[in-house]
Amino acid sequence: MNHSTPSSHLIPVTDSIASTGLGKEKGVIVVSEAVCQQIMGRADAFVAVQNVFSAMARHTAYNFPVIREAIGHADALYGFKSGFDRDGMVLGLKSGGYWPGNSEKQLTNHQSTIILFDPDTGKLASLIGGNYLTAIRTAASSAVSINHLARKASKTLGIIGAGHQSGYQLQAALDQRSFEKVVAWNNDASKLTKLAKICEERSLPFESVNRETLCAQSDVIITITSAFEALIKQEWIKPGTHIACMGTDTKGKQEVDARLFSNATVFTDELAQSITIGEAQHAVSAELIQSNDIIPIGDVINSTHPGRTSDKEITLFDGTGVGLQDLAVASAAVELAEVQGQANYFNL
Amino acid sequence: MNHSTPSSHLIPVTDSIASTGLGKEKGVIVVSEAVCQQIMGRADAFVAVQNVFSAMARHTAYNFPVIREAIGHADALYGFKSGFDRDGMVLGLKSGGYWPGNSEKQLTNHQSTIILFDPDTGKLASLIGGNYLTAIRTAASSAVSINHLARKASKTLGIIGAGHQSGYQLQAALDQRSFEKVVAWNNDASKLTKLAKICEERSLPFESVNRETLCAQSDVIITITSAFEALIKQEWIKPGTHIACMGTDTKGKQEVDARLFSNATVFTDELAQSITIGEAQHAVSAELIQSNDIIPIGDVINSTHPGRTSDKEITLFDGTGVGLQDLAVASAAVELAEVQGQANYFNL
Repeated sequence: MNHSTPSSHLIPVTDSIASTGLGKEKGVIVVSEAVCQQIMGRADAFVAVQNVFSAMARHTAYNFPVIREAIGHADALYGFKSGFDRDGMVLGLKSGGYWPGNSEKQLTNHQSTIILFDPDTGKLASLIGGNYLTAIRTAASSAVSINHLARKASKTLGIIGAGHQSGYQLQAALDQRSFEKVVAWNNDASKLTKLAKICEERSLPFESVNRETLCAQSDVIITITSAFEALIKQEWIKPGTHIACMGTDTKGKQEVDARLFSNATVFTDELAQSITIGEAQHAVSAELIQSNDIIPIGDVINSTHPGRTSDKEITLFDGTGVGLQDLAVASAAVELAEVQGQANYFNL
Repeated sequence: MNHSTPSSHLIPVTDSIASTGLGKEKGVIVVSEAVCQQIMGRADAFVAVQNVFSAMARHTAYNFPVIREAIGHADALYGFKSGFDRDGMVLGLKSGGYWPGNSEKQLTNHQSTIILFDPDTGKLASLIGGNYLTAIRTAASSAVSINHLARKASKTLGIIGAGHQSGYQLQAALDQRSFEKVVAWNNDASKLTKLAKICEERSLPFESVNRETLCAQSDVIITITSAFEALIKQEWIKPGTHIACMGTDTKGKQEVDARLFSNATVFTDELAQSITIGEAQHAVSAELIQSNDIIPIGDVINSTHPGRTSDKEITLFDGTGVGLQDLAVASAAVELAEVQGQANYFNL
């Protein structure tokens, strides 16, 4: 396991299982949820996600249209995110969705399975449990933004939200800077104990605060909620802050004041999603920014955009979540599982 | 194995694996290509496809938007067809596509995998090899149209095309009426030997003819080509003919004279596909018919439309191929495989 902070920005995409041909004779590769949790660390997810954001900006990897359907049964939202990374030779989809009644059955409400195909033949190549990988790829996304956009001297991290994702977000963010304190807010403050515990394990001071205080203290803020209203006001944000808005993935959702987009430099994983279902949807429809003001984070990774240019600049990352992130971490998991003898195989 | 002709039209949808819960404790169910070929007969495919066409017309089953992408590698077309059948409790997708270089690697150019999810929880339920099932579900579609729309006294069957699908089409059609002769045309007539052999095995006269002769002799015509021009002229078709156009599944493709749509009663599997990527696209854009002139075949199955009303009527079925057909045959295959002890299992 390697959970350390990646030190360099551009790490070569390792050969995917499809391109190495490993396992082709053994059949379809299976990497279970349990194996994913055992072998995939935050650093692996960081590298995979950073590389695929880079490939997206170079237009060698692209996402296919998203399918998302309310199926009319069990209140479920079901669909697929899919894409192809031509450099990494990773082709496939993440299938699954949100089943709100699952928690009563001792199952995760979000259910995901990642399915990879051999880009040379179209044959099913591997199946990977997608629940844990979804959590770490989403956390890796904000971590990549912090790595490239937050001030080096950032000392206080603020977390808005205490749901399933929040702990992963906190851990991945703490890898990126030498934070000395964590402040957090949740509409039900009692749920913040999970975050407090993570900080305690790292001997980091943790405080439950109100949102205005959180903004006043934080150098880096992560919002990871399902909110439908701005939880952060523009005037609360101090100069130099980096904000990663990670919760908004649907039309209508909102986490921060749309006016924040007027005086921040705005980055995103995928522009098309950012302006339609991401946090930027409100600022764009209110004409506070234009879509071509928004910079793909891959341009910063590829050094074709300078990223932050001053300590006073407010940077905002709109993380919408793309299928290629799922495929990237899944491909990495397949490779690790094969090398470590943790993969299973079946024939179809 | 049961390859006999189904005798009744409406056969109850058998409980899917997801609703019976069979196999849930055993893990994810795998039904291989080889097992599908062993256990799934034409009659099973007929029942599954007929039932799902019925459900589509009752609006208890629906297809999700189709994803289809030229991936920019290996000249491949890749994508998904997906849907949910609420009565059958079948949720999932067929993933795959067309890899033109596969034949050089001793692989089928069309590669398909069907993936089913538990509609109650979203968990991956089963994986089914999709190549053989795609062939028999497509053949079952035209067979359903012949069953419901061709004259009972149909004696001569005409086949246009001799590709991979044509043999499946011929076999499934022969189950539906007491045909006494088969005539066929292909642009390379030497490839018709496959169809001739099927007829020989059934002691049925077979003749390679030109297209005009084929139309003059046939009571039922199946077109199963990748043509981009009309292979059949309107004036060649005799009264009372049933035509199943099975080849057109993309914008630009065409098999029959668009004027045929003016004096035929037109049926389809799915209206939305029929008028955009199906055979009807040309007649609709030429304003020879309107989309509401086209009747879902499910309405005939459900007896909410009378179907053919005279022996002089020309009936035309535009079979475009929908994801729900794939899910229906895959769900049937899972059930048969479990009952017959032919399923495999793994944990994810």
